[in-house]
Order: sequence, then C-alpha cells, then structure tokens
Amino acid sequence: MALIVQKYGGSSVADAEKIRNVARRIAQAKDRGDRVVVVVSAMGKTTDELIALAYQVSETPHSRELDVLLSTGEVVSSTLLAMALHSMGYPAISLTGAQAGIRTDSAYSRARILQIEPARVISELKKGNIVIVAGFQGMTEDMDITTLGRGGSDTTAVALAAALGAGVCQIYTDVEGVYSADPRIVSEAKRLDEIHYEEMLELATYGAKVMHPRAVELGELFHIPILVASSFTDSPGTLIHGGVSMEVRNKVRSIAHNLNVGKITVVGVPDRPGIAASIFVPLAKAGISVDTIVQNASIQGITDLTFTVAKGDLARSMEVVKPIAASIGAKECVSDDKQGAVSIIGTGMQNTPGFAARMFSTLSEHKVNIQLITTSEIRITCIIDAAQVKEAVRALHRAFEIEEEQ
Amino acid sequence: MALIVQKYGGSSVADAEKIRNVARRIAQAKDRGDRVVVVVSAMGKTTDELIALAYQVSETPHSRELDVLLSTGEVVSSTLLAMALHSMGYPAISLTGAQAGIRTDSAYSRARILQIEPARVISELKKGNIVIVAGFQGMTEDMDITTLGRGGSDTTAVALAAALGAGVCQIYTDVEGVYSADPRIVSEAKRLDEIHYEEMLELATYGAKVMHPRAVELGELFHIPILVASSFTDSPGTLIHGGVSMEVRNKVRSIAHNLNVGKITVVGVPDRPGIAASIFVPLAKAGISVDTIVQNASIQGITDLTFTVAKGDLARSMEVVKPIAASIGAKECVSDDKQGAVSIIGTGMQNTPGFAARMFSTLSEHKVNIQLITTSEIRITCIIDAAQVKEAVRALHRAFEIEEEQ
Repeated sequence: MALIVQKYGGSSVADAEKIRNVARRIAQAKDRGDRVVVVVSAMGKTTDELIALAYQVSETPHSRELDVLLSTGEVVSSTLLAMALHSMGYPAISLTGAQAGIRTDSAYSRARILQIEPARVISELKKGNIVIVAGFQGMTEDMDITTLGRGGSDTTAVALAAALGAGVCQIYTDVEGVYSADPRIVSEAKRLDEIHYEEMLELATYGAKVMHPRAVELGELFHIPILVASSFTDSPGTLIHGGVSMEVRNKVRSIAHNLNVGKITVVGVPDRPGIAASIFVPLAKAGISVDTIVQNASIQGITDLTFTVAKGDLARSMEVVKPIAASIGAKECVSDDKQGAVSIIGTGMQNTPGFAARMFSTLSEHKVNIQLITTSEIRITCIIDAAQVKEAVRALHRAFEIEEEQ
Repeated sequence: MALIVQKYGGSSVADAEKIRNVARRIAQAKDRGDRVVVVVSAMGKTTDELIALAYQVSETPHSRELDVLLSTGEVVSSTLLAMALHSMGYPAISLTGAQAGIRTDSAYSRARILQIEPARVISELKKGNIVIVAGFQGMTEDMDITTLGRGGSDTTAVALAAALGAGVCQIYTDVEGVYSADPRIVSEAKRLDEIHYEEMLELATYGAKVMHPRAVELGELFHIPILVASSFTDSPGTLIHGGVSMEVRNKVRSIAHNLNVGKITVVGVPDRPGIAASIFVPLAKAGISVDTIVQNASIQGITDLTFTVAKGDLARSMEVVKPIAASIGAKECVSDDKQGAVSIIGTGMQNTPGFAARMFSTLSEHKVNIQLITTSEIRITCIIDAAQVKEAVRALHRAFEIEEEQ
C-alpha cells in the first residue's frame, strides 16, 4: 500500500465538471490500494480575480491581508474536491495549509516552508481518508496565514511528499509532460520519459513553464521522484528523478526558450572595482531579478555592462539604473525589449566539448546573431533577437538530433 | 476609551466601493478614540454562490466540507476591509473565526459557540489595531472549521462583545433600525429609539428580519446593549436593551407580520394520549420547525390538529405527516400555503387586559377571518389569509395608535 502525493493545477479544477474528473482520477489511485494525499491549486483564474478585488479596495494591498485573501482560493477548491469524492462514495477530508501542518516563515507572498508537522494528515490517512490539502499556503508560528508565492502548490506537494515519505509526487497539469522542445514550436518535439533533477531545474529556470524550479530543487534535495503528467489524458508523463541512466544522459535533452527577455546596456562604464555592485545591489533591493550579466573586455579603462531582466521589469530597472549610470560617469544607458533566449540543456554536456561550437554554428547558419552567451555545466544559453527565437529552437532541435536519439 | 463591537452585513460590503464606505465609518469610530472590533459578513451574494458551486459538484455536499467552503466568504470580506483601512492609514488586522478564538461544537452548518478565547483579539487591540473578525464561523477543539448557521455573524458580534466586555454591539445593516411595522406596508411606521430584548425577540421570531433572535437572546443573557442602524445613513438606529423605561413599555410597540406560513390540518384525530408526540417527534427529527400548534376541543373523542410551518417546509412536512395520520386513524390531512401571520408585540401587554379584544375586533371590522391564535406574555399572533396580511398590519398599526404614541 504505497503512499502517493498528487497535485492538480488550477486548469485541472477550473469548474465543477473538471473537479469531478479529477475526483475520478483520485478514486482510481485509491482503488489501486494506494494511500493518497492530494494538493490542489485554486480554480482557474480565481487567484487573479482575488488580486483584482484587492486592488479595487486598495492601491497597495497590505501584504499580510493579501495572503489571507489569496489563501481562500485553494481552500475553496480543496473543499469542492473533497465533496466530489464523498458523493462518489470515497471518504475524503480537506485540510487548509495550516491544518495540514505547513509551517512557514512570515515573508508574506513568498513564504518559505520551515517544516511540516504531518500529524493531522497521518491520522486522517489512518482513518482511511483521502486527504485534500489546500496548496500554496501555510501558517507562521503566530498562527498567521501565509502564501508561498510562485510555484507554491508544486512546492507544497513535494514538501508534503518528503515529510510523509511518499514514494512519488505526481504533478498533474494541462500538458503531457516535459518535452524536448515546446511542441507548439517544434512539431517533432518528443515527450521525455524521464529527466534528471538538474536538467529540469535548468529547463524550468530558462523557459519551460511546466514546473517551477523551486519544487524541483526540493525534490532533488529530498530524493522525491516527481512525475509530471496530464490530468486530462492517460499519457505516462515525464519522471523527474536522480537515477537517469548514463546512456540517456550523454546528450542534449531539451531546447528551452524564453520570449520574456529585456536587455539593458550601460555604455562607457569606467572599469573600476565596485561598479558592478553599485548597479546590481540597488536592483536586488528593488526586488528585480537579473538573469544574465555580461561585461565586455575593458578598452582603455572603459567597458560596457549588459544584463537581462524579465520584460515586465524593464521600465522599473531603467528607473533604478539611469541615475546610477549618470553618477558613475557612464556614457549612456540603453534598453531593448525585443530580446529572447534559447538554451540547450543536458547533463551529457558536462566535460564534453563540442556542444557550444555546434550551437553557435547552427545559429550562424540560420543568420541568427548572438548578443549574449551564458553557460552552466549542463546548459548553454544565447540571447538573440526575439523574432528569431522560434526558428532558432527548430534549428537546434534538428541539429542535436533530439527527435531521433530519444 | 470605550471598546465597541461593530458588525456589518453582506449588503453593506457588497462591493469595493461599499467596503471603502464601511472602512470610513470604522475610521470615524477609531477617530473618536474608541477601540474597535468589527465583525463582517460575506460580500453580497457570496454565500449563495458558494452553495450553488457546492451543489454543482455534489447533490448532497458533505457538511464538514460545506462549512469550510462557506467560511471563506467572510474571510475574503474581512481581509478586504482590513486592506481598505490600511490604505486610509489606519492599522487593522483581519482574523478568521478560528484565529479570533471562536470555539464551537462540531454541529456543522449550525454550530453553537461554546466559548471565546479572546487573547489574540485583545493583543491586537493593545497594539492599536482595528480588529476585523470574519463572522459566521468558528473552530472545534479538533481545529475543524464550522459555521454558525442563520444569524451567525450577528451572533459572532454579540458573543465577542460579551467576551471582551464591550460597552455596546452595533449591528449595521441596510435598514435604519427597528420599526413599529414594516415601513414598506405602513407608511406612518416609526423607527423605535429603543426596544426591550424580549420585545425584539418576539419581533424577530414572528417576522421582523432585521435581526436574528439567537443574537438578541445572547445580548439579553450577557446584558450587551445592541444598536441596530443603517450602514448607509447617519440615522441613530434602535437600541435593544433591558433598561427601557416603564412609560415606553406600557403599550404595543410594533406590529410584526410573516407571509412565509404554511398550515397543515390533520382532520378527525382520535383524542388520546401520545397522538401529538406521534406527529411532532418525527417532524422534529426531520429538522422541520413547527411554529403554532392548535388542537380543537374534542367532540366525542375526535379532534382536529392544526399547525404551521415555514412555507418551504410544507411539502416535506406533508410527506412526514400523511403516513402517520393514516396509521393513527385520522380522517384526512390538509395543507394550505396561502397563510400569513400578524402579531402585536409589547411588554406593556403583560398583565394588562384588553389588547387581545382590541386586536380581534379590529381584524373583525376589516373582515379578516382569524384561523389560529397564539400568545405569549408580550405577544398576540393571529394566523390569517395571506392576502389580508398587509391590510391587517395597517389596521392594527392605526388601532393601537403606535405612530402617535411613540
């Protein structure tokens, strides 16, 4: 009698019919004899609607209150799912994050899970109940309600799986798994049967939206295999784990892309110690996440500093950077919101030469100009013109023969 | 620095603009130097919408889950109200029923408050916060969420006022107070400045919808003066308390009416012990509340038994009663859904003859046929044809000269 944790996203529980569909899937798992804990997101666009309501009442909604408000979305879907199971004759109970023992710090809107006290979940499982936990939320030691921010419900699911010693955490969503590239762009893109945590981390960070890197990281840390699959089909999905075989690892696994890239170049910066900090510390304080940073080689003590941010942060970043650029004697400050990124990802790249060369020559053959390059041990990312991203993804997918080798 | 508890109903917080309006009213109380605890209902039709959602998912929503679902309505409005106060520069904090220490039994959908542990509310007041409590809900000793059923938020407010030793509990709603009759029927109806708990109890029970009897009863028990007033105007409202002066008490205070009356007559019942119990115990078990019961004098051991229920319970009551009537040898079972009730209410009626006579003769003068009569020490109720209720209310209002004497 295995213990499994399942998570269903907002699009999987968007209305009553979909909720009943999810209940049937949970019932199947129960029928197989498993003990089941389910983590659920808010229905469809509920969270966006609650946020809109908050902004109708206040231009700057108080963060503690906003968290309590948003937490109701997942409470609603968890109770409806429990009701649907009851009406099918399956014993089920919904628990809020607080009731499920999800203890967090008090960083509202982006709280971190400190620990999970699973006593209530365990006792409900012992009673034979399917336990439905409201995702995305927790409680501080002062009994205040918090939300976990982006990737919150995935994180709740993986953390619960770790705390309960579950054999697997199944993330059900509206896609059939992790692909070798976005199937909307590359028609030959293949669903991967399995992928290593580290590859998934890079994929999630560099464009694939199927899972949030935070939950993947937690899965790796606690050795919880994560299955990503569709809640609408019976496709087997993709298993994210640490035991991917050597053979499979020795290649590029997937092409990630991102169209949400804004670029800022500070031109003519005096190249002296402390300059980078003077720019990036204020950006961090403004809550702006900087992705790629490149500094050109200095010529006569003068250099250019280029970095990328999410497109939505571009205007605010310019507001922060412009006065700093002026004060340090830079020549000018230029922004560009027509940038994109393509990445090749695979643990097979580690200590294996030739991947970068093949990537750059492929892009060159397709007349794609590379503006910035960053790499990790298992990833190479090129910042290019947004208009050329789709073509670049298709060309790279062919060049690395992903569809044939899988 | 007085401590006051205010309660705002669903129509007072139905949208963002109304929530900001309520926030301004709360701010005024705070500006007067009072410490303020606010109890709030769910926005507008939220509760009805959540119930509809539950029935989309399940034909018989599980009662525990339904309570958790419904509790989110008041959590949403409490957070929005706290945000609105914050944005006006007033420190405020929302608390769920559980956080506010409302401890209940586990009778889902109609839980009773067992006790209030006000430590968190008191500590937030000490910090200078306006405390916004989600009404209508509480928590069992097992940390399960419950709702209090009808009149729930009023009851939360009065119970908190009692637990905190507040000087007054102010119930803000969409009417200007308690009237000598329904102003939509009697144009000369007057707002009462004050009314005794017992009179209000009778009024609330026999048709006036302004407050639920349960909250009035609690107010009387703990000697909490309750002000009922409009959240939309500055009308002084009506104070419900125990210290109404002798002079004011010595008359009929108000005419209540109720169009939601269904009547059942069991004809030709053998008049022997245990017959009444054989009918009314099964009705109680079916959760049907019986209002008025009249048994005619027995003629040759045969009598008629007549009683009233809410119109919505009429069909279900007939289902319960018909087989019983047959089994005890009654002749037939007749239902009538065109009944109404008028009541005259006033503590002045106690030990004072003549009120009943004047009521009956007034109705007679207006050709109103009285079908059933029930009385308490401070109330006389006549069940009459629903079509004649409005005329009867107007006639009684004139006959007892309420508009002149107030």
